[in-house]
Amino acid sequence: MRKSVFILKGNIIYSKNRTGLEICEHGYLVCEDGFVKGVYQTLPFRLGGNPVCDYGDCLIVPGLTDLHTHAPQYAFRGYGMDMELLEWLEKNTFPEEARYREAEYAEKAYRIFTAGLQKSAVTRACIFATVHREAALLLMDMLEKSGLVTFVGKVNMDRNCPDDIREGTEESAKETKKWIRDVIGRKYANTAPILTPRFIPSCSDELLEKLGALAKEYRLPVQSHLSENTDEVKWVKELCPWASCYADAYDRFGLFGTESPAVMAHCVYSGENEIQRMKENGVFVAHCPESNMNVSSGIAPVRRFLDEGIRVGLGSDIAAGTTENLFAAMAHAIRASKLRWRIQDGTLKPLTVEEVFHMATKGGGSFFGKVGSFEPGYEFDAVVLDDRRLASPRLPDVRSRLERMIFLADEREVRAKFVRGEEVCSQNLKC
Amino acid sequence: MRKSVFILKGNIIYSKNRTGLEICEHGYLVCEDGFVKGVYQTLPFRLGGNPVCDYGDCLIVPGLTDLHTHAPQYAFRGYGMDMELLEWLEKNTFPEEARYREAEYAEKAYRIFTAGLQKSAVTRACIFATVHREAALLLMDMLEKSGLVTFVGKVNMDRNCPDDIREGTEESAKETKKWIRDVIGRKYANTAPILTPRFIPSCSDELLEKLGALAKEYRLPVQSHLSENTDEVKWVKELCPWASCYADAYDRFGLFGTESPAVMAHCVYSGENEIQRMKENGVFVAHCPESNMNVSSGIAPVRRFLDEGIRVGLGSDIAAGTTENLFAAMAHAIRASKLRWRIQDGTLKPLTVEEVFHMATKGGGSFFGKVGSFEPGYEFDAVVLDDRRLASPRLPDVRSRLERMIFLADEREVRAKFVRGEEVCSQNLKC
Repeated sequence: MRKSVFILKGNIIYSKNRTGLEICEHGYLVCEDGFVKGVYQTLPFRLGGNPVCDYGDCLIVPGLTDLHTHAPQYAFRGYGMDMELLEWLEKNTFPEEARYREAEYAEKAYRIFTAGLQKSAVTRACIFATVHREAALLLMDMLEKSGLVTFVGKVNMDRNCPDDIREGTEESAKETKKWIRDVIGRKYANTAPILTPRFIPSCSDELLEKLGALAKEYRLPVQSHLSENTDEVKWVKELCPWASCYADAYDRFGLFGTESPAVMAHCVYSGENEIQRMKENGVFVAHCPESNMNVSSGIAPVRRFLDEGIRVGLGSDIAAGTTENLFAAMAHAIRASKLRWRIQDGTLKPLTVEEVFHMATKGGGSFFGKVGSFEPGYEFDAVVLDDRRLASPRLPDVRSRLERMIFLADEREVRAKFVRGEEVCSQNLKC
Repeated sequence: MRKSVFILKGNIIYSKNRTGLEICEHGYLVCEDGFVKGVYQTLPFRLGGNPVCDYGDCLIVPGLTDLHTHAPQYAFRGYGMDMELLEWLEKNTFPEEARYREAEYAEKAYRIFTAGLQKSAVTRACIFATVHREAALLLMDMLEKSGLVTFVGKVNMDRNCPDDIREGTEESAKETKKWIRDVIGRKYANTAPILTPRFIPSCSDELLEKLGALAKEYRLPVQSHLSENTDEVKWVKELCPWASCYADAYDRFGLFGTESPAVMAHCVYSGENEIQRMKENGVFVAHCPESNMNVSSGIAPVRRFLDEGIRVGLGSDIAAGTTENLFAAMAHAIRASKLRWRIQDGTLKPLTVEEVFHMATKGGGSFFGKVGSFEPGYEFDAVVLDDRRLASPRLPDVRSRLERMIFLADEREVRAKFVRGEEVCSQNLKC
């Protein structure tokens, strides 16, 4: 059978590793059957005759991966921020999430969230819903239509939260199983379930044990929070006196990368034991620098994670973070690392443009498989960026233009977006 | 003579002091002859019959003041940031600034800068040009046409910079005097000169003495940099062994608030002596949090300044900061203060929404006189913000909408802008 091939032309930038950038100016990026065939300075003779979309002087980068976000919190992004994590959860988050019991509200809110994600440069995301099974399915239906590829989790909570969103332990496990079977029945192409115990303070050992069994039975990945805030870390020690570290409280139940892939958000206060556990278990870190500033958590030792070879991606962490714009997350990651280096620990050098770009593309993307790069065989997720809004008396070089995107781009720069070889959204189209 | 009166209607928000917000929902903001007459929940009978522009559910806030920015650096905002201050000056800034010798380049670049400022929510700014007299005048001509009110400074430098932008000591003073007289001759309505010794490392004592004389002769205000970076502070100690602190190196020559108002950017490393000097001399601080992160300077102890009663405004510090969007500066100020509190010094509590809003309006505005508030008698600078882009399943209260603006607004939210009672720019008009 004849293969489906198309070609994008522009200034192609991608990461093979975290220290360098691959740049091919006015080059050809070839898609074959949804996968990257290659990047070429000159189009090979054998590929001639296929359609080329020439984006002129635009930048073409891999789709970005948001490794940690909360769909129901998009409704209150940008306000109620004069608090730390635990108070913020109690005052802002839990009351808002309780509203998702009502399908009508959930539909209205999730439509806004999905539209925001669709317009952005993000092509993949790991998303928390709420405890409500129906609302989670509704969100997954919408995301499936968006063309983006996502992991979505119905949240589990059976303690330390208000009555109206607390599940019974047995109920939580049962609803989760029912949700998984519903999802399987819907045969989504791009939307997959991920187990989502909220965090240790809101999940009893018994619940975690049941979720561990589900992870094994259905081979489901896991997402949660880890060592975000000092009060939270202290609380986990009280709740799980038997755990050698916060991570251990997940690991004991097979929810920390041993049975299935796991991604943990924050890791601001991960000590040496925990870092080693993350490394041994191949756990992904979702670094959420804006969130860590906004709710006064601190700054994660990202350079340590990278030095250990731990895989790190970026998370917007809506609504402790305010924006789905992953370029902003890259810039915040650089800034946070500079402050950490200056103020807290001069041994951990600031993150570079190359490193944060790697995190936002291949670093986080690899949670989805071969995603986030233009190396041959990678899934074809690409974003075309038009930076003419940022007028300049002289055009900087391509690497500088990428750096400028990191500090200044938003959805206005997204000219076109491709996921798994399909164009999903363009500013020129009605999304 | 009949007075000129017009009225804006909307959700009016402003600061009287730094701890509270004045909010008048669906209220009337009355302008009389370019000044604020008052804010009213119900329009007083005697004001009836005057034109009302009803902005519905929009927010109306005082125009924002950017207390520190560099017009020639707008050309390279967002890139070349993997450096600290002194290296960044040498590699990025000085070579770019040297280009402003050519009028053609300066015109092209300053047109972009001015357009950016005009679209933003900023109504007042303190702006560095370059050492070039002609280019500074050109910038002032453009700003005058923009309708914004600005202080603009021809920069002075006679040491420690490349030959092509270093002036002789005598030459620098002479050119400055000629520039001042040229400015006086142009009879600008909204554009005023401000003395601008770049910073101590690039100005000899002899030059500062001459500038001090000019400050006195022409009663000109002064803008400069102070205690931004550790290496810079060390260098100043070597260059001015006679100075008791960095501030003293300006103060000795009458350039630190005694002869005329002075605004100093950064003050990250101002010690107790320097803080007391700032207080005694009534010096304004231009807090530039994004810049301080981007070039790894650190975090200024803003809470200390406020506790001392020192007047603090916000600066974008383009291009060590990346954006003229002062909302972003407010958000960065909050974030930086939270990290400082968490990591560096738990005694200085994080800045609040009320405090950063005050800094961006009345705090910085007061460098221009009675500016930055809607109290009666203030100059009428107002910005109308339309936040419908930030869709939400339910409309938050007005204070929350202001907080959301701080974290998420950019020039797209600016529906209309008034300076000294004149409408200067609206997204609906061609600016």
